[in-house]
Amino acid sequence: MENKYLFAQKIIRQAGQLIKSEMAKHLEIEEKTRFDDLVTNLDKSTQDFLIAQIQATCPDDKVMAEENGVRHPIDQGKVWVLDPIDGTVNFIVQGDNFAVMIAYFEDGIGQFGLIYDVMNDVLYHGGGQFDVYANNKRLPIYKDRPFNRSLIGANFAMSSDNVHGIRDLAAQTLGVRVYGGAGISMSHVLSGHLLGYFSYIQPWDYAAALVMGEKLGYTLLTLEGAKPDFKTRQMVMFVPRIKLAEIQKFVH
Amino acid sequence: MENKYLFAQKIIRQAGQLIKSEMAKHLEIEEKTRFDDLVTNLDKSTQDFLIAQIQATCPDDKVMAEENGVRHPIDQGKVWVLDPIDGTVNFIVQGDNFAVMIAYFEDGIGQFGLIYDVMNDVLYHGGGQFDVYANNKRLPIYKDRPFNRSLIGANFAMSSDNVHGIRDLAAQTLGVRVYGGAGISMSHVLSGHLLGYFSYIQPWDYAAALVMGEKLGYTLLTLEGAKPDFKTRQMVMFVPRIKLAEIQKFVH
Repeated sequence: MENKYLFAQKIIRQAGQLIKSEMAKHLEIEEKTRFDDLVTNLDKSTQDFLIAQIQATCPDDKVMAEENGVRHPIDQGKVWVLDPIDGTVNFIVQGDNFAVMIAYFEDGIGQFGLIYDVMNDVLYHGGGQFDVYANNKRLPIYKDRPFNRSLIGANFAMSSDNVHGIRDLAAQTLGVRVYGGAGISMSHVLSGHLLGYFSYIQPWDYAAALVMGEKLGYTLLTLEGAKPDFKTRQMVMFVPRIKLAEIQKFVH
Repeated sequence: MENKYLFAQKIIRQAGQLIKSEMAKHLEIEEKTRFDDLVTNLDKSTQDFLIAQIQATCPDDKVMAEENGVRHPIDQGKVWVLDPIDGTVNFIVQGDNFAVMIAYFEDGIGQFGLIYDVMNDVLYHGGGQFDVYANNKRLPIYKDRPFNRSLIGANFAMSSDNVHGIRDLAAQTLGVRVYGGAGISMSHVLSGHLLGYFSYIQPWDYAAALVMGEKLGYTLLTLEGAKPDFKTRQMVMFVPRIKLAEIQKFVH
């Protein structure tokens, strides 16, 4: 497992380098389902790069990935979950605040996760048997703080419209931050900048954070409090386990 | 003016160093008007440091500053406008994403502005006779982009509740980002990460960005389209001049 973990760290940094060197050139932008659901040629080529590396090194492993309908179920064998560019809108508009994400599962059990904040060059990695780090800095387990000394991260529309009570929760805290991109947002939970994160996202958006978060006292659940299905887009929360009951007084 | 400008760069970086070295120690937090309107001992001591430096070097100059009711009007003589820690909530909760801000006016005319993103060590500076830089990188003048390739930054409640039509504008764009803190948010406008910024803020929150922004094609106006008064808290927008008419179709 140690070798696979080091291999994952190597290829995620290589993917980041690839994106950095290519992003200054011409970006082809396509709309997927609507004008604000975008994909670029680099989302696709980065995913192709990661899959090629995995297939060359671990030929029997399977992949679930964002682009091109690559959808091996995580509970069947050795499965890599890939999001080549998470936060594509930030990537296109800002050239910043996006992430590459990798998570690795064996028969449905998360072994490690990685979120690479490319432009800040910060790699969040760990989970399973590995402690969680931001680059070389070990991240501490969540320590209890009151709501009135906390901020939450959320999808703008869901928090604005008080979906499942998110805005009611926000009103107990010092406010809402909207960074765009699940990976970047959940890295801010892992680092303690945000109490939790609330959004409507896909398995490749939450897999890496979920695996790392378990090691630091966080849990990832649907807004109804169920385990995520790792199949469909769901409304989820990524929050400290010891705060869950208190959060569920507002979010239900 | 060149000397004053270099002096301002020196003391704003010194103030950042002061904050960095003190923030790990005990922080005294006080509520000002309500539970989410906070001030710390470091807001006050940083302001005292800046005022002492200014008084020692420019004994006849005046000051308008956030804490302790220091309120010399900007249109009377040589006036420094100071925000010792902008984004105090981020400072307290995250230890990140806050800024020190300085602007300098002579008889109401902005001569230069500075926003120092302390933890990222990026100093935005310029305006008046000086080109605008992020550290040593010269920032370009705003280049037109359509709404559907732009993001806006805003105060969460104002954009959520569609105050003055901000959410209607947001719906034309790729979305809203909420970073907390006017200084950090407006630095993201200057760097091109955000099309504009919409919030309810004080003169020391917008003075520096206004002076730099004028040099890069931005304007700072109330949501009704008037010049800000530099006296009271107002709802304002910081947007590209060439986009103003298009923005005012939604924000009015």
